[in-house]
Amino acid sequence: MNYIPPLNDMAFVVKELLGLEPLAALPGGEGAEASLFDAVLAESARLTQEVLVPLNSVGDHEPAHLDGGKVITPQGFKMAYEQFLAGGWNGLTAPVDFGGQGLPSIFAAPLEEMWHGANMAFTLGPLLTRGAVEAIDYAGTAAQKARYLPKLITGTWMGTMNLTEPQAGSDLGALRTRAVPAGDGTYRLTGQKIFITYGDQDWTENIIHLVLARLPDAPAGVRGLSLFIVPKVLLNDQGNLAAPNQVRTVSLEHKLGIHGSPTCMLSYGDEGGAWGELLGEPHRGLELMFVMMNAARFSVGVQGLAIGERAYQGALEYARTRIQGLPVGESQLQPIVHHPDVLRMLVEMDARLQAGRTLAYYAGWMIDRAHFEIDPQRKAWAQRRSDLLTPLVKGHCTELGVWASNVALQVFGGMGFIEETGAAQHYRDARITTIYEGTTGIQANDLVGRKLWRDQGLAVRELLEEISATLKEFQEGEKVGSAILQAQAEVLKLTVQATERLLRQGVTDPRWGLGVAVPYLHLLSLCVSAWWMTRSAWVAAQGRGGLPAEFYRQKQNVVSFYAAHVLPRALVLARQIEAPGDLLESLRSSMAGDGTVIH
Amino acid sequence: MNYIPPLNDMAFVVKELLGLEPLAALPGGEGAEASLFDAVLAESARLTQEVLVPLNSVGDHEPAHLDGGKVITPQGFKMAYEQFLAGGWNGLTAPVDFGGQGLPSIFAAPLEEMWHGANMAFTLGPLLTRGAVEAIDYAGTAAQKARYLPKLITGTWMGTMNLTEPQAGSDLGALRTRAVPAGDGTYRLTGQKIFITYGDQDWTENIIHLVLARLPDAPAGVRGLSLFIVPKVLLNDQGNLAAPNQVRTVSLEHKLGIHGSPTCMLSYGDEGGAWGELLGEPHRGLELMFVMMNAARFSVGVQGLAIGERAYQGALEYARTRIQGLPVGESQLQPIVHHPDVLRMLVEMDARLQAGRTLAYYAGWMIDRAHFEIDPQRKAWAQRRSDLLTPLVKGHCTELGVWASNVALQVFGGMGFIEETGAAQHYRDARITTIYEGTTGIQANDLVGRKLWRDQGLAVRELLEEISATLKEFQEGEKVGSAILQAQAEVLKLTVQATERLLRQGVTDPRWGLGVAVPYLHLLSLCVSAWWMTRSAWVAAQGRGGLPAEFYRQKQNVVSFYAAHVLPRALVLARQIEAPGDLLESLRSSMAGDGTVIH
Repeated sequence: MNYIPPLNDMAFVVKELLGLEPLAALPGGEGAEASLFDAVLAESARLTQEVLVPLNSVGDHEPAHLDGGKVITPQGFKMAYEQFLAGGWNGLTAPVDFGGQGLPSIFAAPLEEMWHGANMAFTLGPLLTRGAVEAIDYAGTAAQKARYLPKLITGTWMGTMNLTEPQAGSDLGALRTRAVPAGDGTYRLTGQKIFITYGDQDWTENIIHLVLARLPDAPAGVRGLSLFIVPKVLLNDQGNLAAPNQVRTVSLEHKLGIHGSPTCMLSYGDEGGAWGELLGEPHRGLELMFVMMNAARFSVGVQGLAIGERAYQGALEYARTRIQGLPVGESQLQPIVHHPDVLRMLVEMDARLQAGRTLAYYAGWMIDRAHFEIDPQRKAWAQRRSDLLTPLVKGHCTELGVWASNVALQVFGGMGFIEETGAAQHYRDARITTIYEGTTGIQANDLVGRKLWRDQGLAVRELLEEISATLKEFQEGEKVGSAILQAQAEVLKLTVQATERLLRQGVTDPRWGLGVAVPYLHLLSLCVSAWWMTRSAWVAAQGRGGLPAEFYRQKQNVVSFYAAHVLPRALVLARQIEAPGDLLESLRSSMAGDGTVIH
Repeated sequence: MNYIPPLNDMAFVVKELLGLEPLAALPGGEGAEASLFDAVLAESARLTQEVLVPLNSVGDHEPAHLDGGKVITPQGFKMAYEQFLAGGWNGLTAPVDFGGQGLPSIFAAPLEEMWHGANMAFTLGPLLTRGAVEAIDYAGTAAQKARYLPKLITGTWMGTMNLTEPQAGSDLGALRTRAVPAGDGTYRLTGQKIFITYGDQDWTENIIHLVLARLPDAPAGVRGLSLFIVPKVLLNDQGNLAAPNQVRTVSLEHKLGIHGSPTCMLSYGDEGGAWGELLGEPHRGLELMFVMMNAARFSVGVQGLAIGERAYQGALEYARTRIQGLPVGESQLQPIVHHPDVLRMLVEMDARLQAGRTLAYYAGWMIDRAHFEIDPQRKAWAQRRSDLLTPLVKGHCTELGVWASNVALQVFGGMGFIEETGAAQHYRDARITTIYEGTTGIQANDLVGRKLWRDQGLAVRELLEEISATLKEFQEGEKVGSAILQAQAEVLKLTVQATERLLRQGVTDPRWGLGVAVPYLHLLSLCVSAWWMTRSAWVAAQGRGGLPAEFYRQKQNVVSFYAAHVLPRALVLARQIEAPGDLLESLRSSMAGDGTVIH
């Protein structure tokens, strides 16, 4: 099944809707230039279609596997990685000082979307390396940066994140891996880590593992975690590869999807202790992990969007070519895209994915603002905003991807259930996105706990006021149709009410607040998406960006559909937040099985 | 992963909510007896847990496969089938005259739920046989009934349905398989059929295929289809097995789920023509197919409920045993069922599944009414009602199953994505239910086209008036809490409005009507479920049925949660139906790719 990067919509959102100019005007943001953007996207689209797309089903059919303790990735993946490196894609957003291209996140958003859309299992590898680069760049000593960054950025080596252990999934406080000082400033690590994406592979000669572990004097819980750099192969004083470290791949997981990517159980220190060096300060590992994790969460949100778009494109292609009798009027043989219910599924996918793209790219744009702004107040504001948007992108866009991959499969009917068709792979692959790098529930807890309650609503209120101001401007200027404005006003009102209830009641009753956190995450995401979709309709009506006139016409129609068919979802979410707070609690003891059987 | 049939809720819905008495009072319905029901359910639960549950993952890991042209089913499936037959379960609802037990459909509903919940892939076999029994019983000659029914009912032989061909999925008008008269009253069939569930197996020595094909003089389209009985092995005059017929298993499909069930491509008449005999009248095959199909649609709806319940139970079991730190208050280690967001997912699954059960079983109860009623007017009324409910059960309960299997996997977090856990199998298995026996879109077309427009709203209005009368009675008697009644009143009002708009505008603009048919299907299903859930709260408050007091208390809480958190979904569905009718149409030509590229 083919996949074509949606270059028009990518360009529309980045250049016409968000705009590169505000970024280019900031120091360090000079690279945010339209012609460069176009060139980079076009070049990446070539790699995507020629190299990554054809390997997607290969990776599914020939899962990564262990052979004599070594991971063998699917046929062609290593060569694709070499082409990926040759194009300089690995160091796209990495610091120029260490060989990166230093491009802004707003470039990375569409690029990551197309790479994940083409091949999620492949693209996960570079995603994790990027996390390691960011953590070492943020907290490493000069020596550590010199030792690791250049090779991680060129992609000669790859990086991984090691958090999870069998007894500790989302609950990092329960981690047990230990790190003991060796007396020479380095450490010896022992423990087992699970779910390590690309924990081993046959692409690079070395792998730089970033590992959460406890020092002997560490306090219990998450405040006792430190982060260590543990290379697969030890380096000598010249920084060249020496002896293997004590890192063993115990097994690979047999997963529902993303078969091409090796998900490893790693054992550290089988013979006494794996060599490691501390990254950053002792007991501050969680903070650093969040540096990696926030970037990874954003990327996984984009991944959700990407797999949704790919699934949608497959369904559209099928619906355009599959000829069947129409349900209205018996003998009209037509492509099923003309069947009203199939058309509804396709249009709803398209509309929701376009909305998701505005949300995701807006977050990328804000990450750049936070990075480039110099004025402390503006920088803090941009950081607050981008921190707030991260759980929305991760939580909302991944659920969107799972939803779209499900609807897309439905368009195929019986053929969708047959593995060879390819729709089933998307359905299986997409399913991980709402789980790894923190489940949707974890994102919602982060949103409500850290981003709403902790600053007493500052970041959310700022955002909602900005949305309100735009809405007022649009209403007064009659910039788009009244149906769209009404729909957006309704979502905004519901979001404001829900926010205020959460602020008022959530503090005294956090169990209730966290019980409606997921509906709130989706409500706020809808509100932000609606904001950008409304503006999209206006920008498209201007039609000044040089895209085909038909694109602008479609965009306006899609926004109208979105306002009428998708935004009313806010009503349900708001009702769930408005509902009496004790309903869930009334069922807790029976759910927990305290002395009773439900069935 | 275990599965325990929800016997309490099954008994509650059948005996306390719907009641067996009205059926027992009708001629032929005498078997609808409470003590018999209890005994049958308990016995079936034993088979379910001891025989069917343990084979579920076996079927997933060892898919049915072809060996030398013969299908080999997973280890243990044949023996399970023998135990299934030994218990007399195969002929449960079949006519007594031919060796069946003649039990009502209301018994079959919970039994099918538990069998599918235990093992979808296995239970599909008997499901298809039951369809063949109903078609032959309905349209067969005395000789045909005598020849086929006894062995199909004991299960010595199995039956299949052969509709789909590569070029004709849901569009039966495009079928090409031909049947030529042989001159002796029999026919010779040639053609290929795909997606034939249990098209071949190693359980029985013969298989009775019911095959849709065209006679030489057949008109084009669906009105030119006839139905043929085509045994895998020919019978001699004594009805004993003779030579093999020309039916060849070409291949098995490689499917996303239900790996244990063989899905075959069958070739008929490779050497000139497969022997077949006509069932019913020439060119009336579609009508007969609908006899089989309606029963199968009901069963697949129950299957959707079943797989949802199983997935939910797995998630509940995991959430009760997986210990992690609570997000509120760092150091509290507790089973994750106490995490507010996990609790929300579990309770919402439970509530929606309980609601789905009322809808499905009510349809089963109405099938019995239609069967047993003698008074022509009441019989016609019951038939209309059960015809109306069938697409709701199929369309709504299967989407519910897909939804629940997705949420259930989420409860497992990372473990859910690992195949060994079992949650992924449910996610994959459930996915077929919204597709086979007519996709959700086909159900919605059937609902709106045949069940709403054709009788100008008679059946739907009758139903809504009955719901309205109950609501009034409950309001006046203050039988349940006002929040529940308000929620139900809101759903009813929205459903009435949507129905009237569909009747008014749909006739002149059927494309629009069929474009909102799926939202309408879910809205009407919610309305019917709300009706029974409201009544459930009242019946549970009486608490007279002998179930544990805790069950009745939980039921009332679940209904309150359902009213507040689930019923508001009606708002979105209603908005989609209220939305301007031209929004979808405005995007048709661009979706269809008529000269433009979307991206």
